[in-house]
Amino acid sequence: MKKAYQDRAREELLELQAELEQRYKEVKKMGFQLDMSRGKPGISQLNSIMGMMDVLDSQSDYQTEEGFDSRNYGAMDGILEAKRLMADIMGTTPEKVVVYGNSSLSIMYDSISRCYTHGVTKDSVPWCKLERVKWLCPAPGYDRHFAITERFGIEMIVIPMREDGPDMDQIERLVAEDESIKGIWCVPKYSNPQGISYSDSVVRRMAALKPKAADFRIYWDNAYAVHDLDPKHPVKILDILSACEEAGNPDLVYEFASTSKISFSGAGIAAMAASEKNLKEIREQLGIMTIGYDKINQLRHVRYFKNLEGVCRQMEVHAELIRPKFNAVLEILEEELGGLEIGTWTKPLGGYFISFEAMEGCAQKIVAKCREAGVIMTKAGATYPYGNDPKDTNIRIAPTFPTLEEITETAKLFALCVKLVSVEKLLEK
Amino acid sequence: MKKAYQDRAREELLELQAELEQRYKEVKKMGFQLDMSRGKPGISQLNSIMGMMDVLDSQSDYQTEEGFDSRNYGAMDGILEAKRLMADIMGTTPEKVVVYGNSSLSIMYDSISRCYTHGVTKDSVPWCKLERVKWLCPAPGYDRHFAITERFGIEMIVIPMREDGPDMDQIERLVAEDESIKGIWCVPKYSNPQGISYSDSVVRRMAALKPKAADFRIYWDNAYAVHDLDPKHPVKILDILSACEEAGNPDLVYEFASTSKISFSGAGIAAMAASEKNLKEIREQLGIMTIGYDKINQLRHVRYFKNLEGVCRQMEVHAELIRPKFNAVLEILEEELGGLEIGTWTKPLGGYFISFEAMEGCAQKIVAKCREAGVIMTKAGATYPYGNDPKDTNIRIAPTFPTLEEITETAKLFALCVKLVSVEKLLEK
Repeated sequence: MKKAYQDRAREELLELQAELEQRYKEVKKMGFQLDMSRGKPGISQLNSIMGMMDVLDSQSDYQTEEGFDSRNYGAMDGILEAKRLMADIMGTTPEKVVVYGNSSLSIMYDSISRCYTHGVTKDSVPWCKLERVKWLCPAPGYDRHFAITERFGIEMIVIPMREDGPDMDQIERLVAEDESIKGIWCVPKYSNPQGISYSDSVVRRMAALKPKAADFRIYWDNAYAVHDLDPKHPVKILDILSACEEAGNPDLVYEFASTSKISFSGAGIAAMAASEKNLKEIREQLGIMTIGYDKINQLRHVRYFKNLEGVCRQMEVHAELIRPKFNAVLEILEEELGGLEIGTWTKPLGGYFISFEAMEGCAQKIVAKCREAGVIMTKAGATYPYGNDPKDTNIRIAPTFPTLEEITETAKLFALCVKLVSVEKLLEK
Repeated sequence: MKKAYQDRAREELLELQAELEQRYKEVKKMGFQLDMSRGKPGISQLNSIMGMMDVLDSQSDYQTEEGFDSRNYGAMDGILEAKRLMADIMGTTPEKVVVYGNSSLSIMYDSISRCYTHGVTKDSVPWCKLERVKWLCPAPGYDRHFAITERFGIEMIVIPMREDGPDMDQIERLVAEDESIKGIWCVPKYSNPQGISYSDSVVRRMAALKPKAADFRIYWDNAYAVHDLDPKHPVKILDILSACEEAGNPDLVYEFASTSKISFSGAGIAAMAASEKNLKEIREQLGIMTIGYDKINQLRHVRYFKNLEGVCRQMEVHAELIRPKFNAVLEILEEELGGLEIGTWTKPLGGYFISFEAMEGCAQKIVAKCREAGVIMTKAGATYPYGNDPKDTNIRIAPTFPTLEEITETAKLFALCVKLVSVEKLLEK
């Protein structure tokens, strides 16, 4: 059992510091160069999906199930077979789904932009005409969500994350009393960055919210719906659309998903699911902004995966490829930092991240130390609205993109930086 | 030489009417079913590009020129080789270009939406904060342009079209005196629906505009940049970006183009070109709304076409396929309506449409008669802002999608309907 840093005498810490600094110097000389700031699939994951590039060629049939020529204009809200596939991934039904281009982030941006310019529904006030609009942001969370709401001048309120989802007591209270709160960001399964999955109770309470604002919507970014690290024992979350219907709140939620981390990051397909009433407003905007999305790519996805089982087979391959990377990081963190009481970290069952909690006031310095040694991590603070992590503790680790060898070396460097900064911190006292 | 309808005696017209009605009855029995409401490529055009589906397969190299893995996230504003290709199509340079997804219409929508929510530049007022925003709409024009400005509550002012572009005298006067005019829709080459190309003088006067509003922009939809019906004698228009620079107005224009009518309608690539200052504002929005567009499809286009010559070869094939359709319509119009003085029509050198001018107050009735007989044309009025053609004369004919046989029969039906409605009109007097 290692001795916690905080229980060590000053001289011990000074000695340790000298030793760590020496090691850091040596590591720096090795000249690492690695950008692991984003949750990007690794090259081996991309290589594992290349068969998709062979299902459509010059000899293929490009007719959709419903008889559309996928090469021409039309089918504005997606081809039926792609709606079915995306519905299966989200756990909902095809008639609730619109299939877009390659980016679910763009759908979310468009959605907020639409509400800002035209209102959530025809009978609600466009947000640009309101004094203030507020948004609930479970944090740590996804920086790109926060960037969208920030861009529209929406005031973001931090909601703490619990082990089974965001703090529902706070959320229920806030939305019931404040009409200016118009939405909440949620990553319900394997949340970014903590890998937390919402319990059935959290999903049901979310679906049963009684917001003061009639135009309040849950932005349910189901980004990791099938991204289990152990596909034989997937975490299952409730279908939010059904839960909302059961709670008498059918229009409360917009759900989003994409195949960016199933097929190709950037050349996947993305979708939104919502109630018929919500879809009516959405289709009205769509009908002005486009004649239709890339249906050939939609068809390519369906022809390759065929159905949800096909998707799950691909996700098993991914799991085989990325589980060793997650395990390597977790083992090194345990080996290097276990018992030292200078940090805690999540052990996710899926998704793309490990979330690390450093000692207070240490996250920025740790990330800076890593960068100085050639490893770019996600900016400290990025996981909180306005990039402001109030205690400066959270660091997002993205193990998927580097090779196993690289991630192993990086995790060691990271642990070293954590130790170094923590010792400095303790010596300040 | 046929006798003009207006010179015929009432009895003659009554006799003619009876005869035309008899023929119309017979034609209706034939049970036509054809939707030619949109400018869609024909199946033979789509078949002629299928080789593009073979250039990328599971064995291909997906690295871009600059070393990006086109299968992964990144390269937000497009891959360099695609910028070069789209720049060549637009007649500009790659550093001025951003490559997007499949739809240039979406880029235009996003652009207007961005100006509405955030202003054209950081130091200009977002349009949603202004009392009124106005827009110049050369008409007849493209209905989907007008639909975008209408959606944002922008007041549209009709500008008459001349033989070499919109009425520049009016435009110069209006933009100089009215600060609430923030933009103009232009289709500078083979305009939709008249097929008019802007003369050098019009382009130069456009580039030299002195708008009262600093945030006025020309929306230059170069949709038919390489869409010549006689590719050996293409119409050449000036590069608007250079013209603006020369006039000391480098930031005055946003240019748009896509390959929707070169490769696949719906699975092409689209681009925008603008000055460095404009691109800065645009990239700022892009950085929030997406991680990047479909780079595999960008790469597919470049690998297939290689360069502008490759694009032009494809357009020669298109010209061979659609010229006979345009000619068939023009011949039938001449044969059936020549000398009758009940309509005029354009004889375009490129683009996707023939524009027909009926007698005043007849366009809606003609389109209705066609529909009654099973042929859906573009809605009369659609070519004017708010769907309101003040004289009810303009009809857009889209010959590309039907087969040669279908378009021949349709043109005959159309001519019959024109005659029938015109006779009725003359008998009303």
